[in-house]
Amino acid sequence: MENNILLARLKPEIDSIDEAMRRDLQELAANNLIAPGLAEVLQHALFNGGKRFRPLLCVLAAGLCGRRGEDLYRLAIAFEYLHVATLLHDDVIDHAETRRGRPPVSCLFGLAPAILAGDFLHARSMFLVGTIGGRECLEILCRATEAMVAGEFLQLANAENFNQLEDDYFAVINGKTALFIGAVCECGAIFSRADKEEREALQTYGSCLGRAFQIQDDLLDYLGDPARTGKVVGNDFCEGKMTLPLIHALNNCNSREKKFLLDLLMGEKEQRCDWLGEARDIIGAAHGFDYSRRVAQQLTATAIGSLDIFSDRGNEEIVASLAGLAAYVLRRDK
Amino acid sequence: MENNILLARLKPEIDSIDEAMRRDLQELAANNLIAPGLAEVLQHALFNGGKRFRPLLCVLAAGLCGRRGEDLYRLAIAFEYLHVATLLHDDVIDHAETRRGRPPVSCLFGLAPAILAGDFLHARSMFLVGTIGGRECLEILCRATEAMVAGEFLQLANAENFNQLEDDYFAVINGKTALFIGAVCECGAIFSRADKEEREALQTYGSCLGRAFQIQDDLLDYLGDPARTGKVVGNDFCEGKMTLPLIHALNNCNSREKKFLLDLLMGEKEQRCDWLGEARDIIGAAHGFDYSRRVAQQLTATAIGSLDIFSDRGNEEIVASLAGLAAYVLRRDK
Repeated sequence: MENNILLARLKPEIDSIDEAMRRDLQELAANNLIAPGLAEVLQHALFNGGKRFRPLLCVLAAGLCGRRGEDLYRLAIAFEYLHVATLLHDDVIDHAETRRGRPPVSCLFGLAPAILAGDFLHARSMFLVGTIGGRECLEILCRATEAMVAGEFLQLANAENFNQLEDDYFAVINGKTALFIGAVCECGAIFSRADKEEREALQTYGSCLGRAFQIQDDLLDYLGDPARTGKVVGNDFCEGKMTLPLIHALNNCNSREKKFLLDLLMGEKEQRCDWLGEARDIIGAAHGFDYSRRVAQQLTATAIGSLDIFSDRGNEEIVASLAGLAAYVLRRDK
Repeated sequence: MENNILLARLKPEIDSIDEAMRRDLQELAANNLIAPGLAEVLQHALFNGGKRFRPLLCVLAAGLCGRRGEDLYRLAIAFEYLHVATLLHDDVIDHAETRRGRPPVSCLFGLAPAILAGDFLHARSMFLVGTIGGRECLEILCRATEAMVAGEFLQLANAENFNQLEDDYFAVINGKTALFIGAVCECGAIFSRADKEEREALQTYGSCLGRAFQIQDDLLDYLGDPARTGKVVGNDFCEGKMTLPLIHALNNCNSREKKFLLDLLMGEKEQRCDWLGEARDIIGAAHGFDYSRRVAQQLTATAIGSLDIFSDRGNEEIVASLAGLAAYVLRRDK
């Protein structure tokens, strides 16, 4: 499906998600739970051109299993809240200077508002999931959040390990990205009182999509057009971050090239930035990019394939949207 | 009740709370949800001589309404988790250098582990409350967490306002401390399937106790013995923080004294530290300390009085423990 057709089809859902978010914030304000300073921070953090990828997946997953209604959108926004909460905290941790081309909350408003607004959205997210999705959804989401933190700690622990295996990489991205997106889809299914097979299919769709999404992110970091991504090329390598293209290259290049890469990784950041072009050439020649692209394609194919069980139930349009989103993840350039 | 009699009576409950916490962490580890680095951080953050005040209140409140059992302790630890999560984040926000006489997680392990471990405990807390306490408890706790953040924002917004009314002060401490402690007691009651009257009585007990606790904290900041509190005397004044003794004094001293205090508050931190003795004398002469002590006493009396409805039900021992805790809050010197 073309991007613009997909977008046109999803636009009404995205509008409903934004509307549910605005109404929820109004409700909180009416209960005196949003101090003036907090309102401004939440506005900046929540309405900044986010793609609403996670709530959209929740809405589509629930729709696929046959149930909709106003409460679904209130459940769906919980996942955007939790996502934005982690972005707020990530930006503090990474001392980030931009987020979607704008200064992040942590720069614009400071450390305290960024951490506190994250905590606020975290609590609100759990509240919505627990009260609308019920005990099972709360359990799945908390587990995914715990796994997210475990993934971050694993990444910190692996930061200086330049002999990583692919398994180490996947353990991190499963925790940090994939399980959460799988949980979002599964919660949509649970909201729709789906059976076990449907829940598992949607969990598989989400977690495979999440992994593909992360790999595509890693590829864009090396190969993207800064004018499109809004990010500096090669940032991961300059930071010494081990992503799939680099891990594959280290395990498949010759010993001279391996020594060159390892010397850079164990050296200074400045050196890595200076030699980025050469490093990228080695990774390319060792098929680090081709291989990663292939893995992402396989994951996307698995994600789309898991939707087969829904195809004979008059759900063609939603299946096509979910397949379209999966294809979009692969071809996105920002 | 004497401190040591109270402590001896509560010791078995505190041991059961610690035991439930250890078992819960083991369960998480068995599910691969605690990366090695995270385990160390949680150990440091959770087992550092905390008084287990909140879980203890939950256990006593539930006991007062007639129900106990293993699950109660698992519910109770959720409140310690949430409390420690806020301490972890507070220490990052305040750039704190000590916590209970030791370096805090943010100093010892760094910014990222402190923020992430806080998020982990936050999620775990919501999970336990939602699954054991049910929808109503989750709702109350999330609301209290939202109020906590609102209180912090209000405090940030009021930071440069030296003409505060008592109401401003109470709005902040209600959000930051009192509602959470009220929620803890109410959740204990809900766990015990208490009726509305009992729930409200315990909510009143907890929130009044929380306010008294905070006022006693403010008094200790000015008047405590550093050898006991482990804190520098007069830190709040040096930081220009508006607490009840100072607010009362500003509204009750003569215009020359008021100008003296306001000049200091609007000036440099160093000056405030140099003139701390004089400021404290003015606050004392304007009855800022007496008045605050009286308010704390009244709140404690209200807290204890709210337990009257339980007194004729053979619960003398638990009522005495809760009254003892309230009295302890008033006479504590650290």
